[in-house]
Amino acid sequence: MNKEGKLIVISGPSGAGKGTVLGELLDSHEEFVCSVSATTRAPRPGDVDGVNYFFISKEDFVSQIEQNGFLEYAVYNNNFYGTPRKFVEEKLASGKNVILEIEVQGALQIKKLFPGAIFIFITPESFEVLSQRLRSRGTESEEVVEKRLAIAKKEAPNALLYDYIIVNRQGEIKKAAEEIYACVLAENLKPLANRDVIATYFE
Amino acid sequence: MNKEGKLIVISGPSGAGKGTVLGELLDSHEEFVCSVSATTRAPRPGDVDGVNYFFISKEDFVSQIEQNGFLEYAVYNNNFYGTPRKFVEEKLASGKNVILEIEVQGALQIKKLFPGAIFIFITPESFEVLSQRLRSRGTESEEVVEKRLAIAKKEAPNALLYDYIIVNRQGEIKKAAEEIYACVLAENLKPLANRDVIATYFE
Repeated sequence: MNKEGKLIVISGPSGAGKGTVLGELLDSHEEFVCSVSATTRAPRPGDVDGVNYFFISKEDFVSQIEQNGFLEYAVYNNNFYGTPRKFVEEKLASGKNVILEIEVQGALQIKKLFPGAIFIFITPESFEVLSQRLRSRGTESEEVVEKRLAIAKKEAPNALLYDYIIVNRQGEIKKAAEEIYACVLAENLKPLANRDVIATYFE
Repeated sequence: MNKEGKLIVISGPSGAGKGTVLGELLDSHEEFVCSVSATTRAPRPGDVDGVNYFFISKEDFVSQIEQNGFLEYAVYNNNFYGTPRKFVEEKLASGKNVILEIEVQGALQIKKLFPGAIFIFITPESFEVLSQRLRSRGTESEEVVEKRLAIAKKEAPNALLYDYIIVNRQGEIKKAAEEIYACVLAENLKPLANRDVIATYFE
C-alpha cells in the first residue's frame, strides 16, 4: 500500500448525523481513518478526550497556531476548532484515506492546501428534519439550538460548492456511509488516476 | 421510481471484458439495463440475435439511419453498429439506468446528445494483457487480432476524455462491476442532484 490516501473533508450542520455515519464507515472499511480535531469547547456528555476531540485550553490552542501545528482552524460558536497537521500528513503517506469532519470555514482553507481533497456535505432530508433532530437530542438549551439552526441556514448555500451532497435520511445510516465510500472509489477511477495503464498502449 | 435514469456509455478495446463485467453488473443490480445494439457484422459463436446484438443487413441498417432510428451509429472494422433510439428513451423515462456499450466514435456522438451521460472506459491492466486475451480467445484469425490491437492503440488516448477509467484486472470481474455501480452512485450525489434538499434551508 504505497499509494497515498485521499483526504476527505466532511461538513454539514450540527445534527446532520455526521459522527454516526462516519462511525459506520470506519467500522466497515479499515482503509479510512478520522482525524481527531482539537477544540476549546467544553466536552458534551459522552465525549471522550482524544477520541471525539482533543479538549484543550484557549492558551494551548493559540500557541499551537503559532507553531503552524494546524492544517486549518476556525472559530465556531465562540470556540476554536483545529485539525492537527502531523497526524493527517502521516496517515495519508501510509495510504490511509483521512477524514476531516470540519466546519465550512475550515473546509475552504483545506481546499487551498489540498486541491485534490474530496469535499462532501452531509445533510438530513430537510431543514425541518434538522430542527426536529437538534431539539430531540436534548443536550443543548433552546437558545443554543436556535443558534445552531441559524448557522445551518447561513452555511447551507455552501453545500453547492462541495463535490458531493449526501442526504442522511432517518434510518439509512448504512446507505449514507456506503455513499461516502462510493464517492472516494469514483474519485480514484478518474482518468488521471489511471493514466499509467493507458500509457501502456502508447509504446 | 419517477426519477429519470442515467445514461451510461461504456467503451474499451475489444478483449477488455466489457461484456462479462456488464453481465455481472446486471445480475447484481436490477436498476440497470443494457441497450442492445444493431450491427451488420456476422454473429460470432455463442452470439444470440436480440441478446448480444440485433443482426441486420446493410440495407436495413441504412434504411433505419434514414428514419432517425439510431441515437448513434458508427462504422468499425467494415461493419455498422448502431444504438436503437426508442428502447433507450423509454427505459430512461421509466427510471432505469441504461448502458450503451459502444465504440469511441459513437461515444462522441452521444456526448453531444446527452451531455449528462456518464462515460466509462474499460481496459485490461495493460496493452500486453489485452494482446494475450485477444489471442487466447481463439475466435478470430491472427489478421483480425492484429487489426483489433491496432484499433486499440489508436483509440486508447481517447480514454483520457472519459469520466472514469475502470481497469478490469484478471479475476476481478466483480470489482470492476462494483466500480461502475459506484461511478453512477457518485454522479447522483453531485450537488445539482440534491439542490432541492439544500433549498429547504433557504425558506
